[in-house]
Amino acid sequence: MSQTAIPGYTYGTTSVPHSPITLEEFDLLKQTVLFTDEDSKYLRLSYDVLKDQVDAILDVWYGFVASHPYLVYYFSDKADGQPDGAYLAAVRKRFGQWILDTAAARYDQAWLDYQYEIGLRHHRSEKNRTDGAPSVENISYRYLPPLIYPITATLVPFLARHGHTPEDVEKMHLARIKSVILQVTLWSQPYIKEGDF
Amino acid sequence: MSQTAIPGYTYGTTSVPHSPITLEEFDLLKQTVLFTDEDSKYLRLSYDVLKDQVDAILDVWYGFVASHPYLVYYFSDKADGQPDGAYLAAVRKRFGQWILDTAAARYDQAWLDYQYEIGLRHHRSEKNRTDGAPSVENISYRYLPPLIYPITATLVPFLARHGHTPEDVEKMHLARIKSVILQVTLWSQPYIKEGDF
Repeated sequence: MSQTAIPGYTYGTTSVPHSPITLEEFDLLKQTVLFTDEDSKYLRLSYDVLKDQVDAILDVWYGFVASHPYLVYYFSDKADGQPDGAYLAAVRKRFGQWILDTAAARYDQAWLDYQYEIGLRHHRSEKNRTDGAPSVENISYRYLPPLIYPITATLVPFLARHGHTPEDVEKMHLARIKSVILQVTLWSQPYIKEGDF
Repeated sequence: MSQTAIPGYTYGTTSVPHSPITLEEFDLLKQTVLFTDEDSKYLRLSYDVLKDQVDAILDVWYGFVASHPYLVYYFSDKADGQPDGAYLAAVRKRFGQWILDTAAARYDQAWLDYQYEIGLRHHRSEKNRTDGAPSVENISYRYLPPLIYPITATLVPFLARHGHTPEDVEKMHLARIKSVILQVTLWSQPYIKEGDF
């Protein structure tokens, strides 16, 4: 999956705005969530495990969203309330790439900037704009933290599929939980009142 | 530890404001984080395990905060920047009760309302007011989600101390992660822009 093959995937390009927090500030968030170099190592170990399973993982996640009408709502056409297939398909490609970008664990300035972009795309600031989707204006903040759990727990059977020890699978799992907590924190920034972030 | 013995612990009293979300809305958050009756059961199992270890757990958590100056800052006296001992001690008693309230898993209207109160006390809306503390005005949102990890991971050795099987310890641990994710979501509400929660 090359970057140019995914419409709207602008990671590393000049169209991504600058993160409102610095790498030094992000380092304090990493300390808080207990994210260490060992977590980066286990995320990278997970890269090769996950790279051929991305579509199967997305099938699980899209099944979860589809079975919860209050979640699929955020992919609905505002006019008729029906799920927008084109929007779902466009997001899916970037979602797959996100699985791998999280595993690559290159959490540098370009990555930090792109997390800001992802947050803006969840929030009414920029939702729908990337895909020209005729959907609802905002993903309610309230569902962002709760999704940390299913989006990491459902990976465990996939992480276990390459013969790694249960200990290594657990370390890959915990490293991903920490990373997704950090990312949800960054994605929340556009939702937070001025001066409170 | 009786409720009246803890200054500022107003859970279940008329001084607690009404939650901005309903129990029906909270149920959708529970579905999203995959919180089930089994999680309630394992949280309640953890109650007896934790009830005699509360002070030892608080020692670990206060040690963690004390070793991170950017966290202890939120307990500092605004005038001289030094940690406010009285404020730290007052919060500690309620923090201990919170460990047990989370384990009791009576997530009803009174509990939901009190989560709103806890959120207000983190946010500039009501920070310092309960204890008359001369401290900084607001706990930055950015540290709330990252603290989910250490505040649950550090419980594992305590959960394991009553001879439960590793499987039961893990289920108590995962149930607490789900509960703390839900609570951090609720506590965030005062930080979120109007209409975006």
